Amino acid sequence: MLNCKIVSTGLYMPPKVQTAAELSPLIGRSEKWIISRTGVIERRIAEEPMEVLAAKAAREAMGEGPPPDLILNASTTPLQLIPDSSVFIQKELGLVGTPAWSTHATCLSFIQATITGASMIQSGLVNRVLVVSSETGSGFRNMKQPESAALFGDGAAAAILEATPESEQSAILDWHMSTWPEGADFTEFRGAGTRRPPGDPDTKPEDNLFNMSGPRVFRLAVNRVKEALKIIFTKNNISKDDIDWLVLHQASGPAIEAFVYHGFAREKVINNIAKYGNCIAASMPIALATANAEGKLKRGDLILMGGTGAGLSVSFALIRW
Amino acid sequence: MLNCKIVSTGLYMPPKVQTAAELSPLIGRSEKWIISRTGVIERRIAEEPMEVLAAKAAREAMGEGPPPDLILNASTTPLQLIPDSSVFIQKELGLVGTPAWSTHATCLSFIQATITGASMIQSGLVNRVLVVSSETGSGFRNMKQPESAALFGDGAAAAILEATPESEQSAILDWHMSTWPEGADFTEFRGAGTRRPPGDPDTKPEDNLFNMSGPRVFRLAVNRVKEALKIIFTKNNISKDDIDWLVLHQASGPAIEAFVYHGFAREKVINNIAKYGNCIAASMPIALATANAEGKLKRGDLILMGGTGAGLSVSFALIRW
Repeated sequence: MLNCKIVSTGLYMPPKVQTAAELSPLIGRSEKWIISRTGVIERRIAEEPMEVLAAKAAREAMGEGPPPDLILNASTTPLQLIPDSSVFIQKELGLVGTPAWSTHATCLSFIQATITGASMIQSGLVNRVLVVSSETGSGFRNMKQPESAALFGDGAAAAILEATPESEQSAILDWHMSTWPEGADFTEFRGAGTRRPPGDPDTKPEDNLFNMSGPRVFRLAVNRVKEALKIIFTKNNISKDDIDWLVLHQASGPAIEAFVYHGFAREKVINNIAKYGNCIAASMPIALATANAEGKLKRGDLILMGGTGAGLSVSFALIRW
Repeated sequence: MLNCKIVSTGLYMPPKVQTAAELSPLIGRSEKWIISRTGVIERRIAEEPMEVLAAKAAREAMGEGPPPDLILNASTTPLQLIPDSSVFIQKELGLVGTPAWSTHATCLSFIQATITGASMIQSGLVNRVLVVSSETGSGFRNMKQPESAALFGDGAAAAILEATPESEQSAILDWHMSTWPEGADFTEFRGAGTRRPPGDPDTKPEDNLFNMSGPRVFRLAVNRVKEALKIIFTKNNISKDDIDWLVLHQASGPAIEAFVYHGFAREKVINNIAKYGNCIAASMPIALATANAEGKLKRGDLILMGGTGAGLSVSFALIRW
């Protein structure tokens, strides 16, 4: 158990909306097809760079509080390879000296960065951690792959972590993760590294776009999620009914719906896939920040935060809000 | 203090050597110029992908012990953008289910991943962590920028972290890091992200190569390192003479030499810049693994591990071996 509290959250969704109707001609599928397959009615398209979105979300999370003593960037699509994006976020925030680095676990980056920051707070190394996810990868959608292109959108969200005061019960009660490399090629961006280097004549245009086999991800994910839920529930001696809120990676409409199949009441599942689509690593903190802004999350509530990401990885944190 | 121990290390250097004499015609500078400016007499060039190097180093570190329950990839240059490289390292190791993700702090990735893993061990979340750095970015050297092209080489190294048994004194005694975004453009790889996207017609070939202003890094680094050393020594009430070994990021010959200027005895500074060059994130664990393999590091020794990385960031861990 980590005696750590998510003290505040922040959200910044870029104003430009792209509806399913607007996307339809770009991917050669009807509005109805897009909405029925993915659940995404509209998504946001960033016209500002990732660090600007990140800083706007971070400022809302930081509020009037002191500056953080650690910045963890938890985004998938970087501004550039070097330096890592945390440096640009810090620069945009006008901070200097604050230690900063990045955690990359694709769609699960926010949960892994939260576990990193919370473990460091628990260990006494830091006191106030900013975790921020910002995704502006809508330009990397492969319009020739309608199934995946219809999913993605841009957005940013952030959270501030601190040690829980002795009089309070907020905590990260448990964390469970597993990674299954058999799913390594189910969700890919093959470029931007040494395998298919940018600028290499053998690198194909589609190597530099998102590539996803939704059905293969879904089949592997359903079973791995079921196992993960059983482990975390057994270990903590709780049942699905004890969970007040599910804060999930918003992979797709069907992926979120699968949690209802797994036995959770629909009204407990934070769901903004229709409005924002799949914002990669930002989806989970966006779900957290929207639920928090709407006043849904009450201190003492039991929250299960997590989902699946490229890898294929499954990760869940059990949180006493 | 983290009651955590680096129980073992592993190293894999690709067999192909590129000497200063061989590099000389490629960058239009003499062998003598290369060696006097950078200190790099030769470096290794990988002919295998990053996950193969990583797995070879990891297997040596893992030895006959049980498999890790967490894999942290701490490399700068990825195999591809998605999934993160940890998944491919796990696959190459033949492991399944082990949670895996990546930490990116450029040349300081290994120290940040070690702090992450050690904090998670301290917090009781995991028991045995594999931290592995593998760099195969020699193909990204900009041969038109001799100062930086003469520095880089390939290689991989790994470490296994576990909780320290009660009868032993091994620990990560302290950690200090600072990030200074004024140095964000001193060391860059501008491509592979949303700023200068791979495949975008406006992205220039040199955006997809390492770019470094050595003198600007050096000037900023000298002062920031001096401040960081003062903080860590004052806080822990020790002096430079108490340090048994300096395990540094091998940035360049002059950058390592600067630590002698900072007052450390030359014989305490692990230095393999001449043999391996700057292997980016792998340099620090390569220095650790070579010193360990040579029997230099004795349990109880006080080690200062760290250095500088793109950002500009400065990070040091004070370790009781």
